[in-house]
Amino acid sequence: MTIGRMAGTGDGEAQVIADVRQAVNLPRREASSLHLPTAATRLGPSVESTTRGPILMTRTRSHWGWGWADRWPDDAARAAFAEMLSAMRGLRCEPRPPVELEAIVLRPSAVRAVPPELADVVSTAREVRLNATWGRSFSEIVRAFMGDFAPAPDAVASPRNADEVAAVLRWAEAAGLAAIPRGGGTSVTHGVTARPEERRAGVVVIEMSRMARLIEVDTVSRAAHIEGGATGPRVQELLGPHELCLRHYPQSWEFATLGGWIVTRAGGHYATGRTHIDDFVESVTMVAPTGTMTTRRLPASGAGPDANRLVLGSEGTLGVVTSAWIRVQTRPRYRSNISILFSEFGSAVAAARALAQSNLFPTNCRVLDPGEAALNQVGDGRAVLIVAFEDDLPTRDRLEAATALAMQYGGVAPSGARHRESTHEAAANDAGAQWKDAFFDGPYLQSLLVSFGLVADTFETACTWSQFEALHAALHAAVAPIFAELGGGELTCRFTHVYADGPAPYYTFVCQSSHGRQLDDHARIKRAVSDVLSAHGATITHHHAVGRLHRPWYDIERPPLFATAYNAVRATFDPAGIMNPGVLTDPE
Amino acid sequence: MTIGRMAGTGDGEAQVIADVRQAVNLPRREASSLHLPTAATRLGPSVESTTRGPILMTRTRSHWGWGWADRWPDDAARAAFAEMLSAMRGLRCEPRPPVELEAIVLRPSAVRAVPPELADVVSTAREVRLNATWGRSFSEIVRAFMGDFAPAPDAVASPRNADEVAAVLRWAEAAGLAAIPRGGGTSVTHGVTARPEERRAGVVVIEMSRMARLIEVDTVSRAAHIEGGATGPRVQELLGPHELCLRHYPQSWEFATLGGWIVTRAGGHYATGRTHIDDFVESVTMVAPTGTMTTRRLPASGAGPDANRLVLGSEGTLGVVTSAWIRVQTRPRYRSNISILFSEFGSAVAAARALAQSNLFPTNCRVLDPGEAALNQVGDGRAVLIVAFEDDLPTRDRLEAATALAMQYGGVAPSGARHRESTHEAAANDAGAQWKDAFFDGPYLQSLLVSFGLVADTFETACTWSQFEALHAALHAAVAPIFAELGGGELTCRFTHVYADGPAPYYTFVCQSSHGRQLDDHARIKRAVSDVLSAHGATITHHHAVGRLHRPWYDIERPPLFATAYNAVRATFDPAGIMNPGVLTDPE
Repeated sequence: MTIGRMAGTGDGEAQVIADVRQAVNLPRREASSLHLPTAATRLGPSVESTTRGPILMTRTRSHWGWGWADRWPDDAARAAFAEMLSAMRGLRCEPRPPVELEAIVLRPSAVRAVPPELADVVSTAREVRLNATWGRSFSEIVRAFMGDFAPAPDAVASPRNADEVAAVLRWAEAAGLAAIPRGGGTSVTHGVTARPEERRAGVVVIEMSRMARLIEVDTVSRAAHIEGGATGPRVQELLGPHELCLRHYPQSWEFATLGGWIVTRAGGHYATGRTHIDDFVESVTMVAPTGTMTTRRLPASGAGPDANRLVLGSEGTLGVVTSAWIRVQTRPRYRSNISILFSEFGSAVAAARALAQSNLFPTNCRVLDPGEAALNQVGDGRAVLIVAFEDDLPTRDRLEAATALAMQYGGVAPSGARHRESTHEAAANDAGAQWKDAFFDGPYLQSLLVSFGLVADTFETACTWSQFEALHAALHAAVAPIFAELGGGELTCRFTHVYADGPAPYYTFVCQSSHGRQLDDHARIKRAVSDVLSAHGATITHHHAVGRLHRPWYDIERPPLFATAYNAVRATFDPAGIMNPGVLTDPE
Repeated sequence: MTIGRMAGTGDGEAQVIADVRQAVNLPRREASSLHLPTAATRLGPSVESTTRGPILMTRTRSHWGWGWADRWPDDAARAAFAEMLSAMRGLRCEPRPPVELEAIVLRPSAVRAVPPELADVVSTAREVRLNATWGRSFSEIVRAFMGDFAPAPDAVASPRNADEVAAVLRWAEAAGLAAIPRGGGTSVTHGVTARPEERRAGVVVIEMSRMARLIEVDTVSRAAHIEGGATGPRVQELLGPHELCLRHYPQSWEFATLGGWIVTRAGGHYATGRTHIDDFVESVTMVAPTGTMTTRRLPASGAGPDANRLVLGSEGTLGVVTSAWIRVQTRPRYRSNISILFSEFGSAVAAARALAQSNLFPTNCRVLDPGEAALNQVGDGRAVLIVAFEDDLPTRDRLEAATALAMQYGGVAPSGARHRESTHEAAANDAGAQWKDAFFDGPYLQSLLVSFGLVADTFETACTWSQFEALHAALHAAVAPIFAELGGGELTCRFTHVYADGPAPYYTFVCQSSHGRQLDDHARIKRAVSDVLSAHGATITHHHAVGRLHRPWYDIERPPLFATAYNAVRATFDPAGIMNPGVLTDPE
């Protein structure tokens, strides 16, 4: 079972995911209905605003799991899937329902009074606080599923503009509150939830859904100035009339926000080239307790260290990204893809390396290990290399050259493999729309497995090509005894991104556990694999961010002097230390 | 006259530069002779060291101008060129000889005693100090030409390893000396020369020529660990046996160093794609007064803000880059290029923009305005767009598609235009080696014009496409009255780099002046054009760095909060404020 895909797939995997989705038979999402906001619902995380004023999407987010509430399967569908999973994978499933929304008990808010000027901005209402409590990492989903909302913030601010963000920060600083910026709430690293020792006099979450406007488009320079709270669909909606697109598709795309992508250095679904949000940021505006920083709009500059790169990865510890100028694109005219099979995973890895180091410049170059390929019902139990090209010229020659290169490493392009070339317009009429829906289903499966009492999670990294083989073996060696002890489990791997100097391997694991034991069992596996990543010189995160979850290993990974320097930077932007305490570093 | 090219050209311009070189008839460089060092010459800036110990190149650098001393034309050649320049361009030339090396008077060194452990590392010898005095900006060349070596350092350290760098920094801190890291001494922004008010108790220059070894190669991951003092030719020499190359060719390539490129964010000669040193750095080691920072070798990471990006652009204000793991490559198999003519500069700009925003991915895409094209003897007085492709597949289709696109903007591919495709091996046998020599001649011409009493310099920037037209017009409007008043001058423009959201325009100007007036005349023009860049939201430098020269405009460009944060970072790495004072910021 592939779950929690955070970075996606080329068209070549469309069918794979469609198959998985079909097997699970998750209900399709409905078209959202739009109407004007009511006072009671205005501040929920599903509020969006447009240039014409706030408009409410009544479709509601799950109060505990991934995504839309209406995607939660009914009892019969869950029971059927649990039965299939037991039969096929030998996992003991105990389907249970999540806590009822009404049954959740929140601690009383520590915020007694909201300043009058923030009356329209700050809410202490139960459901608003509840919806702003958790991110969506495994342990957070488990705790929310069980009804544990202990880390609920004391207040939630929904600013409408940068001035209101600044006012909220002034209030937080004066009232001694910790301030946690929140985009889509899709963090899988405890990035948006304070630990008890970080709560100070209380916690205010600053959620950005009302700041999702298009401020300006520069069609000549192909750049757009968009507010930080715009989600993936919202960015698309804003750019569509200009026939432009961002083409940054992390798996969180449907819910996560531009500001969130920037501060967590999100990775898009393309394995190569233009895929990281880092490369799309032309300039950024960040509101911090000590003031506002706006960088100059420039295609490039050699004037000192790049100020944008200080904001990228800052994870809410310096301020709130209220808007950014982003580089936008038109679609390439042609695209093609092929799946190539390998008897040995190592051969597929070698072929991916050769391709990444060639001057053929594939748009996608993704390896699935035999386990992941089998679980995804691709091929016949062999490892798979998926290669794709996008171009303004026909790509058949390029695809053939890539295939020939892969064959030098033992790859086989099976008859029946999809080796097609199409214009983007043609593609949009077949698998294009389909895979996108399918791609976003992964995280829903994780929530479902949580409800079965299983452990199901992903972790991701990057390392040099020369380190990968040993790292991969050590990860399997580390989890095998734990899986055995817990009653069975599986670790699978694919590459979400490849670079000339190394891959970004993405691991999925599903392991036997049971309700009540999930947190401990998961923590044990997470610790084991993270220790291996650290010991092998791999990064603790390629695109999931550090948050609080990855701190122990990030503290080893980042140079000590950099941490000292970063704390000095934090003190500059946030002398009182209110911004997302506990994330990245511990200022003294 | 094209001078001071800091970022270069594709093969398409080989002939252009060859023509210019031929017109000037600069002497060809000789093969370097290598022998073991002598005590007297060991510490000069032309010393290199290898893994087998120090080896001396006896070929000496000019004591005042660009490059090798033996490239200085003889009296007859200079007189002939001056005459040609007067006749062709109407410039009044007054050829004079530079100060004799022996005639230069240095202030006595303020350093009375060198610690015994640094006896083999630190020199206060006259010629060593003299050679480490100036960078190679216009005003520095003028002052050196006149024999003004007032800013000579009090001592020059030539450390052999990171420990010796640390020892030098400890000594500098204890002795109250300012410490200035120096790579090739090719700074064009006063980056390696302290102003009087920055000298503290004295100045020690840390020159890196003895740290130029290959520490390790990882051929699997295509990365190499090289010391910071390795020059371009040295990097090539080190990688050659492994059939790898860096393919980063700033015009300073022959003399500048890996460490220097990193701290100044050097731009290579490719107009697009893999060209900036920023993108080649996999990890870096920097020795600072408070300790050593080494980042982890990773192809990519999303773990917090990128520590490498703090070192990139730090211009010696945080520490000394002693080594870096850099991403290396093999050569693409095929390449092709074409020159396309446009009656209107604006049309060539529009075509370059269309190409940069296409999904054709040209390797080079360079515009020359009519003035620059004419001076380079390209075409017939029209603007020129040079397009090149490099690929592991034949590139003819791609070149034809790019040409067709350019023609939509009014471009004409003249008969006789070189529209050829070749393998890299074939190319190496014709223009390959030739253009590289020619490309590096540009700065020699600037030194020659200085000796004629002219003003001759370049400046470069980047801006969005939507800003460019107004910026370009305003620059011409700003210099026109100054040129008129001074007795004639010319401003020409080409794009060294293009991005989807904007170009990096590179301007060359030659203006009438006379000996004794050059510094004032130059400062007036430099101030005028820099003010225009600033007012139009362009950057004060795309790849030349900030140094001390660009401070007034950098101080406007970088956000105030970023400067405060950067000063906090400086204080972390360098609490005593000894590192390259006056560069980038002024710590309180």
